[in-house]
Amino acid sequence: MSWTLTEDHLEDLARGAAVLGTGGGGDPYVGRLLVREAIREYGPVTVLDPDDLDDDALVIPTAQMGAPTVVHEKLPNGAEPELALRALEKHLGAKADATMPIECGGINSMIPLVVGARLGLPVVDADGMGRAFPELQMETFGVYGVPGSPMGIAGERGETAVIDTGADNRRMEWLARGVTIRLGGVAHIAEYSMSGADVKRTAVPRTLSLALSVGRAIRLAREENADPIAALATALGDTLYSHLRVLFRGKVSDVERRTEEGFARGRAAAVSFDGEHKLEILFQNENLVALVDGEVRCLVPDLICVLEAESAEPITTETLRYGQRVTVAGISTPPLMRTPEALATFGPAAFGLAHDFVPVEVAS
Amino acid sequence: MSWTLTEDHLEDLARGAAVLGTGGGGDPYVGRLLVREAIREYGPVTVLDPDDLDDDALVIPTAQMGAPTVVHEKLPNGAEPELALRALEKHLGAKADATMPIECGGINSMIPLVVGARLGLPVVDADGMGRAFPELQMETFGVYGVPGSPMGIAGERGETAVIDTGADNRRMEWLARGVTIRLGGVAHIAEYSMSGADVKRTAVPRTLSLALSVGRAIRLAREENADPIAALATALGDTLYSHLRVLFRGKVSDVERRTEEGFARGRAAAVSFDGEHKLEILFQNENLVALVDGEVRCLVPDLICVLEAESAEPITTETLRYGQRVTVAGISTPPLMRTPEALATFGPAAFGLAHDFVPVEVAS
Repeated sequence: MSWTLTEDHLEDLARGAAVLGTGGGGDPYVGRLLVREAIREYGPVTVLDPDDLDDDALVIPTAQMGAPTVVHEKLPNGAEPELALRALEKHLGAKADATMPIECGGINSMIPLVVGARLGLPVVDADGMGRAFPELQMETFGVYGVPGSPMGIAGERGETAVIDTGADNRRMEWLARGVTIRLGGVAHIAEYSMSGADVKRTAVPRTLSLALSVGRAIRLAREENADPIAALATALGDTLYSHLRVLFRGKVSDVERRTEEGFARGRAAAVSFDGEHKLEILFQNENLVALVDGEVRCLVPDLICVLEAESAEPITTETLRYGQRVTVAGISTPPLMRTPEALATFGPAAFGLAHDFVPVEVAS
Repeated sequence: MSWTLTEDHLEDLARGAAVLGTGGGGDPYVGRLLVREAIREYGPVTVLDPDDLDDDALVIPTAQMGAPTVVHEKLPNGAEPELALRALEKHLGAKADATMPIECGGINSMIPLVVGARLGLPVVDADGMGRAFPELQMETFGVYGVPGSPMGIAGERGETAVIDTGADNRRMEWLARGVTIRLGGVAHIAEYSMSGADVKRTAVPRTLSLALSVGRAIRLAREENADPIAALATALGDTLYSHLRVLFRGKVSDVERRTEEGFARGRAAAVSFDGEHKLEILFQNENLVALVDGEVRCLVPDLICVLEAESAEPITTETLRYGQRVTVAGISTPPLMRTPEALATFGPAAFGLAHDFVPVEVAS
C-alpha cells in the first residue's frame, strides 16, 4: 500500500532504518534533519508500494556514499543527491518517474526522501540491500541482473561525474570510491536506474514501511515501559526478517576504528555484565561478524544490530564507544539475500572473512 | 599551412615532440608505434593549420593522462582516447570536427593523431601547453578562459567517466587524477572542448609542425656529422621559442624517482665532465627547475631539456639514469605562456617552488 510520509513519521523511521542499517547507513539524527527540512520546505512525500509501480516506470535510486566517520563531521547541504540524479538523467536522456533507497540506514533511507520532497517524485518502498552494506556492488539489484552503471556522482561544491563500467559493478564501486575519496570522503550518487518491472523482480520490498514499524515498536515499548527488544522481535515476526536472536548483553570494552580507503573499518569488543563472556564484532562501515567467546554467532548478510541496552536505540559503528551498555541482536535477512548468488556478492567471503555463512537462527 | 602526416614523419615528429616535452609527455618510442599502427590501418592524418579552422568548428582535444613511469610499463591498446572522446561527445550532444593535442610530448603529441587516423578527423596543429606540464589545469586554454570541463575519461577495460567541475579546472584535475590512479595510473582523456575561434585565441599555435622541424633538424645534423644541439638552436631561432641556452654538459650522477599521487616525482643530479660543476634538476613528470652549482638557471614554464650528449636524443624523466652523458638545454617559452595569468597557473609557484620566474635568456 502506498502512503504519505510526513514530518511525524521521521523519528520512528530514522530509528528503524538505523536498526536495519546494522551499524552503517549513516547517522539517523542527521538523516532525520535532512528530510525534515525538505518536507517543511517542499511538502510531504509519497511512498510508493512496489505493487503500485508501473512496469515501465523509470526508477533511479539515490544515496549517500562514503565513510560514516566522515559523514559524521561533514553534513550534506541537501542539494547533492538531486544533482547526482540530474547528471544521470542527462546522461540517460530520460527523466526519473520515482527514486528509491539503495539500502536501509539512518541516512540512506532518508536521502531518497529528500530527493522525493525536493523534486516531487514518489519514493519506492523497497531497496537493494535490505540492510546496509559498505560497497556499491552489494545490491540485490546487481545480484539479479540490473547493472549499477551508468551512475551519477555529485560533490558538495557542485562537481558531478558520470561513471560507466558496463556490467562490472565491482569496477564501478572501485572508481566511484576513488572519486568519493577525492571529494573529501563523502559524495551523493544516483545509480542502478531500472524499470518498475526490475524493481519488483530484484528489490527487497517494503523496507521503508518496515523501518517505520520497527522504529515505532521500539518507541511504543519505551512509552509503555515494556521491553523494546521484545517489541522489536514482535515487529519483525511476521515480516521477511522473521528471526531475532539476542546474541549478547554487556558493556563495550574496546573500540578500534580507522578511516581507510574511504571506509570506516575496525572492531569492537564487549564484556558481559557478569564478566564471564566476551563479544567481538568486526566492521567495515557495517557490522560484519559477531563472535561470542570466539564462536561465530552471526555473519553477513544477516543483521548484527548493536542497541543501547535500556532503550534499544541503535548505535552506529562511528558512534560506538567504551562503556556503552549494549544488547546485540542478530536478525535473519530475507530469503532473496541468502541465495548462492547473493552470498557470492555480499556473503562472508566477499568481505574476506574465512567463515562460511550460517543463518543466525541455526548458528551455535 | 595544413599538411598530411604519414608514417615517414613519425620518427622526427616523436623526437621533436619529446624535446618540447621537457622530460614529460611520454615515451616517444611508444607514441610513434601507436600512430604508426593507426596510420597503417586507417591511413594518413590531416594536420590542420589553426588559420584553416572554422571559427565555429567543435574541437575536442585528446590525450593520455598518468605517471610516465606507469605508462612505460602499461601500453595503451589504441582505442581508449577515442572512447574518451565518444563519452564526451555523448555528454555534449555534439560531434567533434577536429581533435588537438593538449601538450607537446612523445606520447601526447601522438594520441590525437591516433584518434585522427582512427576516426578520420583532422588534428589541429596547436596545443595548450607549448610543452608538457603534469596537471590538467596547466593549459593556456584555461588561462585564457576555456573551461576544461566537461571532460571524458576512459580506461583500458572500456570504463568511462565524464567529470564536470564547472569553471574550476584545478578541481577537475584533482578528480580526474583520482580516477586515473584507480584505473591503474594511466587513462585517456578528452577535455577543453572549444570552438575554432577559441583555439585561435588560446592555443599555442603550430607545435606539431615545430616538433617535426625540431626532430628533423636533429636527425639531419646527425647524418651530416654536425652538432645537433646547434641545429636545434637554429631550428628554434625564428619560432616563438627563440632562445636556446646550453645550461650544462656532464654525466648523470644520481636519480631519485618515485611514483606518488599519480605522478612521477623526483630529482636528478649531474657532474660536469671536468668534475668542477654540479647540476640539479627537480621534476614532477616534467623538469621543473635546473640549478647549476646551486644557482637557478632555468625554471618552469621555460623548457628544461635533457638531451643525450652526442645525439641530442631527448631523455624523458622516467628513463633518466646514472651514467648518462647529457647536454641540458634551456629553451624560452612563447610570450603567451609568460603573462602574469599564465605564470599564476603554471609558473614556479604553481609547483610549490620558492623561486620567482626569470626568463632563461636573462637568468644568471
